[in-house]
Amino acid sequence: MSLRVTVWNENVHETTQPEIAAIYPRGIHGAIAEGLAELLGEAAEIRTATLADVEHGLSEEVLRHTDVLLWWGHIAHDQVSDEVVERVQRHVLSGMGILVLHSGHFSKIFKKLMGTTCSLAWRNEGERELVWTVAPAHPIAQGIEQPLVVEQQEMYGEFFDIPVPEELVFISSFSGGEVFRSGVTYTRGRGKVFYFSPGDQDYPVYQQPQIRRVLANAVRWAAPVAAERRLPEVSNPATGWFLES
Amino acid sequence: MSLRVTVWNENVHETTQPEIAAIYPRGIHGAIAEGLAELLGEAAEIRTATLADVEHGLSEEVLRHTDVLLWWGHIAHDQVSDEVVERVQRHVLSGMGILVLHSGHFSKIFKKLMGTTCSLAWRNEGERELVWTVAPAHPIAQGIEQPLVVEQQEMYGEFFDIPVPEELVFISSFSGGEVFRSGVTYTRGRGKVFYFSPGDQDYPVYQQPQIRRVLANAVRWAAPVAAERRLPEVSNPATGWFLES
Amino acid sequence: MSLRVTVWNENVHETTQPEIAAIYPRGIHGAIAEGLAELLGEAAEIRTATLADVEHGLSEEVLRHTDVLLWWGHIAHDQVSDEVVERVQRHVLSGMGILVLHSGHFSKIFKKLMGTTCSLAWRNEGERELVWTVAPAHPIAQGIEQPLVVEQQEMYGEFFDIPVPEELVFISSFSGGEVFRSGVTYTRGRGKVFYFSPGDQDYPVYQQPQIRRVLANAVRWAAPVAAERRLPEVSNPATGWFLES
Amino acid sequence: MSLRVTVWNENVHETTQPEIAAIYPRGIHGAIAEGLAELLGEAAEIRTATLADVEHGLSEEVLRHTDVLLWWGHIAHDQVSDEVVERVQRHVLSGMGILVLHSGHFSKIFKKLMGTTCSLAWRNEGERELVWTVAPAHPIAQGIEQPLVVEQQEMYGEFFDIPVPEELVFISSFSGGEVFRSGVTYTRGRGKVFYFSPGDQDYPVYQQPQIRRVLANAVRWAAPVAAERRLPEVSNPATGWFLES
Repeated sequence: MSLRVTVWNENVHETTQPEIAAIYPRGIHGAIAEGLAELLGEAAEIRTATLADVEHGLSEEVLRHTDVLLWWGHIAHDQVSDEVVERVQRHVLSGMGILVLHSGHFSKIFKKLMGTTCSLAWRNEGERELVWTVAPAHPIAQGIEQPLVVEQQEMYGEFFDIPVPEELVFISSFSGGEVFRSGVTYTRGRGKVFYFSPGDQDYPVYQQPQIRRVLANAVRWAAPVAAERRLPEVSNPATGWFLES
Repeated sequence: MSLRVTVWNENVHETTQPEIAAIYPRGIHGAIAEGLAELLGEAAEIRTATLADVEHGLSEEVLRHTDVLLWWGHIAHDQVSDEVVERVQRHVLSGMGILVLHSGHFSKIFKKLMGTTCSLAWRNEGERELVWTVAPAHPIAQGIEQPLVVEQQEMYGEFFDIPVPEELVFISSFSGGEVFRSGVTYTRGRGKVFYFSPGDQDYPVYQQPQIRRVLANAVRWAAPVAAERRLPEVSNPATGWFLES
Repeated sequence: MSLRVTVWNENVHETTQPEIAAIYPRGIHGAIAEGLAELLGEAAEIRTATLADVEHGLSEEVLRHTDVLLWWGHIAHDQVSDEVVERVQRHVLSGMGILVLHSGHFSKIFKKLMGTTCSLAWRNEGERELVWTVAPAHPIAQGIEQPLVVEQQEMYGEFFDIPVPEELVFISSFSGGEVFRSGVTYTRGRGKVFYFSPGDQDYPVYQQPQIRRVLANAVRWAAPVAAERRLPEVSNPATGWFLES
Repeated sequence: MSLRVTVWNENVHETTQPEIAAIYPRGIHGAIAEGLAELLGEAAEIRTATLADVEHGLSEEVLRHTDVLLWWGHIAHDQVSDEVVERVQRHVLSGMGILVLHSGHFSKIFKKLMGTTCSLAWRNEGERELVWTVAPAHPIAQGIEQPLVVEQQEMYGEFFDIPVPEELVFISSFSGGEVFRSGVTYTRGRGKVFYFSPGDQDYPVYQQPQIRRVLANAVRWAAPVAAERRLPEVSNPATGWFLES
């Protein structure tokens, strides 16, 4: 059975800033989708959706048929409707995987899933980022160089105000000396969450083969284990119910 | 320096149902405050607040002077104003500790901090609950019997839809065979969170010395480590800033 | 590529106690291997090894060609040679997965990987064990009933002196009221470890389809992510080495 | 009640290499003890012990009266007797706290408690180490600057082959770009373990006030919660035993 992947991007930088359109001519979502298609091949059906689409391209119908959603947003977080955010959250809690990327740390959906401010330190000077694997047995780290070198990237630094990750897969350092928990996992309800910070509109990070491999690995990892999409619910069983099941 | 503790209770059952007022004549908040006073003595200043108070008794002023907040609610979660919930969240993220009790699993503040449905299985048949310590080195378990026996209690059972706890301190079993992660900790921002399930309006659980000890231990544990109350914030440092500090 | 699985059993009860041979006529290893073969089919090559075999059937050659090792032992832990235990540990740290079963909690290899006493409470009265899933998104829980009912089993209870699990998948309760962290995972070096307590020589637990499913799921989960078997090693890199790689 | 602290040091560099004796004239243990005395004052009774002492200064009597043990070793790990290592492990599992420092990552006691190789990358070029707090609510981070700057230090880098920490308090970066999980906690049995990497015989790190503060905080954190020193043990309770207690 093939994985159904939806790559969501606010797609505002690329449609309003020519210098960014030059880096990502098919949009950040296009570059990400291309990378996943390369690496997952027939194992995945990949579609894209953007802020400007009806319901941001994330209707109930689309989400019901999405195993893993990728989320990239930056300057238009507040234009995402609360209704869509609640719908996405419901699907995550019901089993859909989600990958939140880079500046998506401040998206409504990520903050809602985390319960914290998700604030961090940042500096955009095109510094070298080194991404170190600290969980070599983790499927998301499979085939990733130690370290993965990103020649130019925005610095994201600690303190990153997120809940303690369930799994810490990557830690980055930057030329300026800062460090960042750059690849972290969570479970929320029946769904898996992976946040990965490398990737920015100003640098061609999503063209980099090793970054694409992290995303492809993470898509496989975040795929639901159960076929059924079901929200955790309250139950009120009688005594001994489990003996009759 | 003495710990400043605020015990919050919706206080609806006790003011509307005589049979519950008989169990908790000074309210659930009164019973909890009494227990903390017994065990913490001069180490703590304890006050109470309820839903009916102005701003639910949780003004900016009160929260600023609260080190640890305890929260009990059940049938009136939706009557708690969103403004107060956001204020409480801001204080937790800034360093205030919070203990969420029993049916508080469905409170607005707990769901906001967790990001999940917080749903569970339940059955109110006055079953025996056994509370087992699985983290004997944890300060919250200090002086607690193995197991702590609650003669009559509402059953709360798995699956409990919470994020994976940072620390799992207690697991309960019930006469009916169910189990429950009944004592769990989290960090959110600079604040500590402890959820503890034993304690119900129908049974005199908060009169029980060992339950009072858990709460007193947890208050000490959840107290902020830093004197300053400060929300994690975004910063945009220049390169090498740390050398000048 | 098919998974290479080795099921190790001390095989002492079955060869010396006719009443246990009656429950497990092909040995506990035989019953486990049969269950894995049923569920994994051509995805796995399954072999068995026992204490009485040369080098306990765990030569360097066998381990080098084993992706996941299952370990069942009880009354003969001290007859396992230290040399073999160190060899198994080296392979686990280098990437081989290991599933430690039931009374294997006291095996030399498990204690060596954990660093604790691994002691617990026990009572062999054929009590009903209920195995509750607390991590429904975990691949090991895929397809497992809530709860999984084992009609008769030895009680294993808390406090179970293990390091805090990385992932807590299952919690069991017993007729007597005790609870137990019955399905827990760890990483050690590049290898994955799963301990699962249900399964005893006195009861036909390994014939039970749902128990077999847990083991098959765990074998898939514990399989190494990297093709290469390599022990984590010290390195002494020159500055900037990562730029040349 | 005052904390009873024992600072253990192999004390070989200082007694055989004059240039190191110049940095640590009273030994590394002397510098550490001095720092703890400064910060803990009357809250602690501090003694020291070294490899050359009878039983390495770690007799049953000494350990029984030690709440927290600090461990520094480097070139003489193999000269520590297995008997003393087993004694220390037994005391840790029974409730004594332990702080393992810098090159102690390769000590017998640390490897025994971890179950892994504890290997890492290293380079001794006197690089600047920045120690970043990623758990600001943790008591060990209380009063620590963000970042803590160590002007000159040996580089310790990932992959550090330790079990996934229960709590990750500090992450370091080095001038060379490497990162390291430099402050991590574990529980083993009833005892708490803190590993902290800054501190080397070649640099006066243990004279640095902020490093001393980390150690003093960690001593408080690692102190046992229970008065009683007791190894986790097997029990074989009859059904319903907890009702009679």
